[in-house]
Amino acid sequence: MRCAAAIEARQVNELAINVDPIQAGGRLTADAMKAVIAYGDGYSVCDNCRKPNRLDYIAKPPIAGFHKDLAAWLNMDAVRTVPGARRAFQAVAQTYVTKGDPVLLTSLSHYTEFLAVEEAGGIVREIPANPENIVTPDAAAAKAEEVKRDCGRAPVLAIIDHVDYQYGNMHDVKAIAKVLHQYDIPVLYNGAYTVGILPVDGKALGVDFVAGSGHKSMAAPAPSGVLAATAEREKEVFRTTSIFGDVTGRKFGIKEPAMMGCTLMGATLIGLMASFPRVKERVKHFDRELANNKIVLDALLSVTGTRVLSEMPRKHTLTRVDTTQSFDKVAQVHKKKGFFFSSALEEKGIVGIIPGASRVWKFNTYGTTEAQAKYLAQAFVDIARENNLPVT
Amino acid sequence: MRCAAAIEARQVNELAINVDPIQAGGRLTADAMKAVIAYGDGYSVCDNCRKPNRLDYIAKPPIAGFHKDLAAWLNMDAVRTVPGARRAFQAVAQTYVTKGDPVLLTSLSHYTEFLAVEEAGGIVREIPANPENIVTPDAAAAKAEEVKRDCGRAPVLAIIDHVDYQYGNMHDVKAIAKVLHQYDIPVLYNGAYTVGILPVDGKALGVDFVAGSGHKSMAAPAPSGVLAATAEREKEVFRTTSIFGDVTGRKFGIKEPAMMGCTLMGATLIGLMASFPRVKERVKHFDRELANNKIVLDALLSVTGTRVLSEMPRKHTLTRVDTTQSFDKVAQVHKKKGFFFSSALEEKGIVGIIPGASRVWKFNTYGTTEAQAKYLAQAFVDIARENNLPVT
Repeated sequence: MRCAAAIEARQVNELAINVDPIQAGGRLTADAMKAVIAYGDGYSVCDNCRKPNRLDYIAKPPIAGFHKDLAAWLNMDAVRTVPGARRAFQAVAQTYVTKGDPVLLTSLSHYTEFLAVEEAGGIVREIPANPENIVTPDAAAAKAEEVKRDCGRAPVLAIIDHVDYQYGNMHDVKAIAKVLHQYDIPVLYNGAYTVGILPVDGKALGVDFVAGSGHKSMAAPAPSGVLAATAEREKEVFRTTSIFGDVTGRKFGIKEPAMMGCTLMGATLIGLMASFPRVKERVKHFDRELANNKIVLDALLSVTGTRVLSEMPRKHTLTRVDTTQSFDKVAQVHKKKGFFFSSALEEKGIVGIIPGASRVWKFNTYGTTEAQAKYLAQAFVDIARENNLPVT
Repeated sequence: MRCAAAIEARQVNELAINVDPIQAGGRLTADAMKAVIAYGDGYSVCDNCRKPNRLDYIAKPPIAGFHKDLAAWLNMDAVRTVPGARRAFQAVAQTYVTKGDPVLLTSLSHYTEFLAVEEAGGIVREIPANPENIVTPDAAAAKAEEVKRDCGRAPVLAIIDHVDYQYGNMHDVKAIAKVLHQYDIPVLYNGAYTVGILPVDGKALGVDFVAGSGHKSMAAPAPSGVLAATAEREKEVFRTTSIFGDVTGRKFGIKEPAMMGCTLMGATLIGLMASFPRVKERVKHFDRELANNKIVLDALLSVTGTRVLSEMPRKHTLTRVDTTQSFDKVAQVHKKKGFFFSSALEEKGIVGIIPGASRVWKFNTYGTTEAQAKYLAQAFVDIARENNLPVT
């Protein structure tokens, strides 16, 4: 079935259980689907734009109110919407980083943080994770000291992922921020896997900025995201324009250069807004998500040889496993090679694991029901048994 | 009717004729509406992302092919999708502009160009438009000379709007680019009001970059846009990343820092793609759009005292008029003041003119049928007659 001339209609989340690591938190709510249809047209949210002519001041649809609610929900002082968390990293990097400046990331940081630093002209120094793949406050302090020694100055910014994309491990951002603040380093909390998934309290974390991803974790269309700041940092990253035209003398009022003026528009913003009530509710029930994850993980671990590479017990539903000593043994002798695994899963209506991967792979059970989790668990066990792998 | 808890369903383009200057070219096609529904979920277009793991290489949906088609259609060598034309300006400015560098804009340039320069640390020098509000090649040359004299070097970049947002006037970018290239200044063609509206041939224009807006002029959801480059400039603005992690030694392959890695995702990209066949077709019939614009404009001019502030004959459907000596005379004595005008239009099912404006205002007839244009024309005349203004 096609939805446009050359475009097959997508039915992944209608026809299968999808455990794709990056897609789990970005499925639209029913309200978002309806809102996206109503507000699909380009500048759809701008019908009632009035002075001071900035998108986050629009009252109808209730964009201004949404911004206030979002800031309160994150317990931060100010918030703007952005086209993806990466654009939040970019805005913050552009504000604090100039050519040659050292910036702290971690050995588990997402590539978009690297690109944001690169584009601002900075260099990256990674805080190494420990052998358990956890970034500790001690390692952060040691790295800050190392940078001071090497560069003659402290890093100008740190971006720390609360939950990293590689293992789905949770890092103690609160303690890390406390340490880094002793060096006066602004800390950007990357909540791409947490904001919209579990409760996030910026003030309790003691961070300067909170970034979140709409399309990854807030049930919104891409590209969408949020950037929240403390009152102190708000003045810096959400500074208003000071440029002017030499001929016309034009100035541009309260437009913000780091935001490129008006922020997220149209379908993406309205999707974020429409899903927000449900998102606020769902973060309160992350324990259920972890319970479902445990159902699946226990089943995987019942297949002899399977190892979990993520921290245990799990604190997030994004999980990395090593099946070199279980499912990959089948792949070694199967005519489909590693593809036997995704193929067998697909036959059972399960998608989202990289086709061909049978050694180290990731999955995310976020958003599954308990019944779906049990079905997933049974499917992994069944595939093992069908291929004569020992199951305990 | 609500589409989500606190969000009223938008029905502007269903219930009225909308002549909003910025909304005319961004209404979705039927195909885009269907595609946006199918691909609303966050990372919806990433189901089949395979090595080299960059969005513009994805074959299903046909994103890679779309990029090739788009480049060919603009007659440029390479193209990327971006979250709005402003993000194209930003990427180009970040590439060429460093602190204190002079950049040429014009006295009619859009504010987002100023912000892109500001964010890159540059300063703006405006090429003045002539008394007819046209930017000429002579003025461009004079300004380049002036900058050289004042700053001791030529401008590092020029951004020229083919059709400006203030008057909808068309400026001779081809001749301007030719002049500016004598100073080795890269020229970014801002096609926010042209790409998707009328034929654009980058090579014939002789420009280095073409930027377009999906939500303004390509029947796509916001934020969306395109940035096309010549083969020479492609290497500069679409350079691949060279940053690395000092601990892990990680590098990030063919990801592009000025693009912040993977480009436009999900609903916005699919909207651009789904509308593209229709957009390619519609640019061939811009003459019909101008004919409809003339029907409306003739009617407005038949109201004694109305002046057109845009160039005549019209080369674009975005038009600025001065009704200080016609409709504003009514406003002076009407109990609704200037709001009588938008109010009277709304009663006739016409929206998109700023409420309260009765002196200088803009409208855009793009996308109206001939019947709608005639209806608009009659409505303006009727409102004049109902308020005892002389009509010739």
